[in-house]
Amino acid sequence: MSADPTARITAVDTHDIRFPTSRELDGSDAMNPDPDYSAAYLVLRTCEGGHEGHGFTFTIGRGNDVQVAAIEALRGHVVGRSVAELCADPGALYRDLIGDSQLRWLGPEKGVMHMAIGAVVNAVWDLAAKREGKPLWQLLADAEPEWLVSQVDFRYIADAITPQAALELLRRGKEGAAERAAELLRSGYPAYTTSPGWLGYSDEKLIRLAKQAVADGFTQIKLKVGADLADDVRRCRTARQAVGPDIRMAIDANQRWNVAEAIEWTRALAEFDPYWVEEPTSPDDVLGHATIRRAVAPVKVATGEHVQNRVVFKQLLQAGAIDVLQLDSARVAGVNENLAILLLAATYGVPVCPHAGGVGLCELVQHLSMFDYVALSGTTEDRVIEYVDHLHQHFVDPVRVQDGHYRTPTLPGFSAQMHQDTIDTFTYPTGGFWAADLAGADPAGRDLAGTEPTA
Amino acid sequence: MSADPTARITAVDTHDIRFPTSRELDGSDAMNPDPDYSAAYLVLRTCEGGHEGHGFTFTIGRGNDVQVAAIEALRGHVVGRSVAELCADPGALYRDLIGDSQLRWLGPEKGVMHMAIGAVVNAVWDLAAKREGKPLWQLLADAEPEWLVSQVDFRYIADAITPQAALELLRRGKEGAAERAAELLRSGYPAYTTSPGWLGYSDEKLIRLAKQAVADGFTQIKLKVGADLADDVRRCRTARQAVGPDIRMAIDANQRWNVAEAIEWTRALAEFDPYWVEEPTSPDDVLGHATIRRAVAPVKVATGEHVQNRVVFKQLLQAGAIDVLQLDSARVAGVNENLAILLLAATYGVPVCPHAGGVGLCELVQHLSMFDYVALSGTTEDRVIEYVDHLHQHFVDPVRVQDGHYRTPTLPGFSAQMHQDTIDTFTYPTGGFWAADLAGADPAGRDLAGTEPTA
Repeated sequence: MSADPTARITAVDTHDIRFPTSRELDGSDAMNPDPDYSAAYLVLRTCEGGHEGHGFTFTIGRGNDVQVAAIEALRGHVVGRSVAELCADPGALYRDLIGDSQLRWLGPEKGVMHMAIGAVVNAVWDLAAKREGKPLWQLLADAEPEWLVSQVDFRYIADAITPQAALELLRRGKEGAAERAAELLRSGYPAYTTSPGWLGYSDEKLIRLAKQAVADGFTQIKLKVGADLADDVRRCRTARQAVGPDIRMAIDANQRWNVAEAIEWTRALAEFDPYWVEEPTSPDDVLGHATIRRAVAPVKVATGEHVQNRVVFKQLLQAGAIDVLQLDSARVAGVNENLAILLLAATYGVPVCPHAGGVGLCELVQHLSMFDYVALSGTTEDRVIEYVDHLHQHFVDPVRVQDGHYRTPTLPGFSAQMHQDTIDTFTYPTGGFWAADLAGADPAGRDLAGTEPTA
Repeated sequence: MSADPTARITAVDTHDIRFPTSRELDGSDAMNPDPDYSAAYLVLRTCEGGHEGHGFTFTIGRGNDVQVAAIEALRGHVVGRSVAELCADPGALYRDLIGDSQLRWLGPEKGVMHMAIGAVVNAVWDLAAKREGKPLWQLLADAEPEWLVSQVDFRYIADAITPQAALELLRRGKEGAAERAAELLRSGYPAYTTSPGWLGYSDEKLIRLAKQAVADGFTQIKLKVGADLADDVRRCRTARQAVGPDIRMAIDANQRWNVAEAIEWTRALAEFDPYWVEEPTSPDDVLGHATIRRAVAPVKVATGEHVQNRVVFKQLLQAGAIDVLQLDSARVAGVNENLAILLLAATYGVPVCPHAGGVGLCELVQHLSMFDYVALSGTTEDRVIEYVDHLHQHFVDPVRVQDGHYRTPTLPGFSAQMHQDTIDTFTYPTGGFWAADLAGADPAGRDLAGTEPTA
């Protein structure tokens, strides 16, 4: 595998991959009762021996084909580009994609088209990190502050952060970075687990998994709430009794409530000492989150997994609407926009605790938090990455969580690559699993879906 | 054509329709230099003799295929439904579509998937109005307040408007409605025109079209700005001289600026007495619009054509961020969500001046403003519907503008239906025009595109 300065992107292959997770109610919450965790997946092919870039949008089933179509609509911007130039400046492609005026109409910078841009941009970063021979977090942490600033689009956020202010934050982040990188390789990055708290689980399963989480070294768990208050009171009491008073317990309503309902419901659960209330209402409602936060303190307010772009994150911070910023690796326009979001969070001093789970979100987002620790915020205090023990076996470089910490990835790339066997089996509707399932057969390889959590 | 209580929706036909408008720079602005006005178009087929429902999403070219794919992803929710039930309660389908938990992940309630829902919901309203034998504005104006309230989803807006408050607004709107309906049929609804002000036009063309607009009875025109300040100063001076001091002249930046740039640029153009500044920055930036509005008064701030849903409109009103609300007929989830937006505007006393132009947006939105006048706000004071003289000849029931007013439509339906010949000619890439164009021929029927404004 050697760098070829004349190499080009030769193809963008796409795959509609779906896992039948709804059959076990894993991932069930008040708004998403039956998700089939899915990925609109792409591979950037090159004529440079052995180098490929992998990326994806996470979806929960129906519509994954629409997401694939959106990725395919970007093909013309990518095929034929110089691999060396693309990897030297992913921001140039990012700007071309969000700047395509005809495609921009379909957002702008939100929804299906924006997530497709994120998948393509992230695939470029995967390719760039593989060519550099570094895990992505290290590529970012090693980069010059000036270059990182060049990767950010400051349009619409310049009233909150300027390129000069960003440069200063990143220069300060260089101080002590080598020591933090060594510490990261030794100890990993703190995680919390959502595995016990899915809404569809029995109390017995909740207790068993909550106790297991504590035994496994986690210091924070999360429970889904918002469907029925009496149930939530019972489940929160049950979980609190299972884990004891010293474990942080977050609650997550998945946008179920109006503003007034969010306040009332959160107060009703306050006796169980929730650490944060997550997605209490629409992710679009900046002012609503600000109202809720004022009313439910000291319970913290967290959101972000459905926040569409840097402009909404900017306002959540400007309005003092959140205590915890939950960026998502694949909802916004990829690493470049997440750099802007990390810089905004650092500017306002708000901790970033990324959303993960789904398919491959843990694999991606660990790199962003680890870069943030080594070379931007410089701390892991009050920072945890979500961990859900689903579907990791489908990845070539899966996350490893030990003693409640993500182990630091060391293989080159963005950890985004799935096994070819997974693609062959779970491509919808023609892959081995689905072809058999749709034909009414009991598909072989059922456990390949990994739908039974093992945590 | 008779109502059949057992009739079902039998098919959802879709069409990718594109017009080559970029070749004349019609529709050119600072963010959209070369739009090919397009429609992701659908027809609801029924087994009820003669009744069909037509709807579409407006796009500006590339990505129209993605939008079509999103409409197709909704097919399973629609085919097989009872026509009578669907038309008696379009809100039931609207709730099913925005509530599909797997599809919801692709927004939520924004972008490609949300616009697809809007197209389908609007097609149902077209069908319902045809079955009732009324133009849509009249169907809405004749409806009982209780039923209209049942068509609105109050989730995420209940902190600004409750069902009870909406009911009171609509009951008050009934007073004098018959007189206003008669007045509407006599005089039509005020319009303003954007036709003179496209960024790609020469000064000579700007002067000619601006003078023509005044001669045609318009009392407001609009100029695109934001690409180059010196050019904008010259074009605003030229236009102001052409129309004189008594004609309102709006300026439209199409999201080109950061907050500080918007303030600076608008102040630099203030000497030409702009009536409003439109889309000064990102449509997502509620707080930014509020800052801009405070700084540029008495120039008014207008936005809405890219505002994704009722939640963002709610906040723009709560924050006092806009003077003029520019709803779009096909950006949000159709008539039902626009009812919510009209009710929010009425609650805050902010005039609605809808976005139009594009393909068929004038045809649709006139119905919403006319309903608002007859049965909700009860006034046309400071209210105008945008008018652009593009592509109307492709519609079976095109808008008619006389003396600066939209004439009131009287044919049953939502005016959404295109001629079959248009569909056959401009379907991309297989229709007559595109097949010839892509084969390198000079396509016959070039003027079918209607790309030369006649105003």
